[in-house]
Amino acid sequence: MKKVAVILSGCGVFDGAEIQESVITLLAIDRAGAEARCFAPDVAQMHVVNHADGKVAEGARRNVLEESARIARGDIAELAALRVDEVDAIVLPGGFGAAKNLCDFATAGAEMTVNPVLARLLTEAHDAGKPIGFACIAPVIAAKVFGAHGVQVTIGNDRDTAAAIEAMGARHVECPVEAVVADRSRKIFSTPAYMLGPTIRHVAAGIEKLVADVLAAA
Amino acid sequence: MKKVAVILSGCGVFDGAEIQESVITLLAIDRAGAEARCFAPDVAQMHVVNHADGKVAEGARRNVLEESARIARGDIAELAALRVDEVDAIVLPGGFGAAKNLCDFATAGAEMTVNPVLARLLTEAHDAGKPIGFACIAPVIAAKVFGAHGVQVTIGNDRDTAAAIEAMGARHVECPVEAVVADRSRKIFSTPAYMLGPTIRHVAAGIEKLVADVLAAA
Repeated sequence: MKKVAVILSGCGVFDGAEIQESVITLLAIDRAGAEARCFAPDVAQMHVVNHADGKVAEGARRNVLEESARIARGDIAELAALRVDEVDAIVLPGGFGAAKNLCDFATAGAEMTVNPVLARLLTEAHDAGKPIGFACIAPVIAAKVFGAHGVQVTIGNDRDTAAAIEAMGARHVECPVEAVVADRSRKIFSTPAYMLGPTIRHVAAGIEKLVADVLAAA
Repeated sequence: MKKVAVILSGCGVFDGAEIQESVITLLAIDRAGAEARCFAPDVAQMHVVNHADGKVAEGARRNVLEESARIARGDIAELAALRVDEVDAIVLPGGFGAAKNLCDFATAGAEMTVNPVLARLLTEAHDAGKPIGFACIAPVIAAKVFGAHGVQVTIGNDRDTAAAIEAMGARHVECPVEAVVADRSRKIFSTPAYMLGPTIRHVAAGIEKLVADVLAAA
């Protein structure tokens, strides 16, 4: 049974992992006969957003690992405990958490830095020939880590984000929500998910294809 | 396009709505060509559970509507704003939130009381001939509200919960996770979901059938 590390970044589109994308990823992996293993960094969230009104909850603090554990029903481990030789692939769902808690793209744009543990794990997996999938905004992390290699990724068609991706040395390819951009030689796969939407079934179509492509390359 | 009210109870299996069940419900509704509308009560959670270690976070407070909004990507309304004549059906996913925040089954058992707004809405929908679906532990709410009518429901095969359901006047029917107990004359449908599990694909099979049965009866 192939094992896929799913890296979460909190719990909620505005300050954490996009919940719907994350669950669809877990379901697609299970239905494919593979095993998902969830991981998240044990760090503070950049901030907490009240998802009912969209405003930052001043003074509120939440932990990325604890909140990610909600999606995983408690079955989760600290990111640093992930051993690349124990999994066959890695998938990163999106949500602002990917751009706020796994890196600082949300505030630094193309000048972003990636959580060093995550950057090391992605590099190790890539060097070991293991496929990596990125959904929604998460491909900016691929652009930063693998941009020097000219990796091809998509975040749909948002111009500013695409420009930042190209500024980091990667190549942005426009893509509809139901499809995947596959950089097959590098085994890097991406899908726009809620960067495009519009609804959950469209996002699911793209993520299901992402998971299928990742598993086929594993 | 049929409209389905999805009633959430927070965000996380141990203190809120079961996230995976909730997302699978939303996806199944969208894929069926219907429209999901999310609602949750604007009340405090019974408590907050750290999902990484399973322990109650002493002193922490969260609001059911705000946390439910994470699953719904902000597209949610207060439960009291739900007008039964504007929807064709209602579905309640599970999670401990259904037993802690929508009623007090978790602490009161068969002596439980249901959130009065929810009890009124369920009764109104039932009286209007609209189908209602319940997943996981949520069927205890059906047992309380419709027990006097001898409604048939399932929570899988947990003996204590089944006994409480029967003590409220309802009839419990054992059921595997991929199936639905359909009380067709009363248009009340239920599926065990994570009361049985074991994994997300099994839960998804049952919830997809639940949504299909509810929509067929709408």
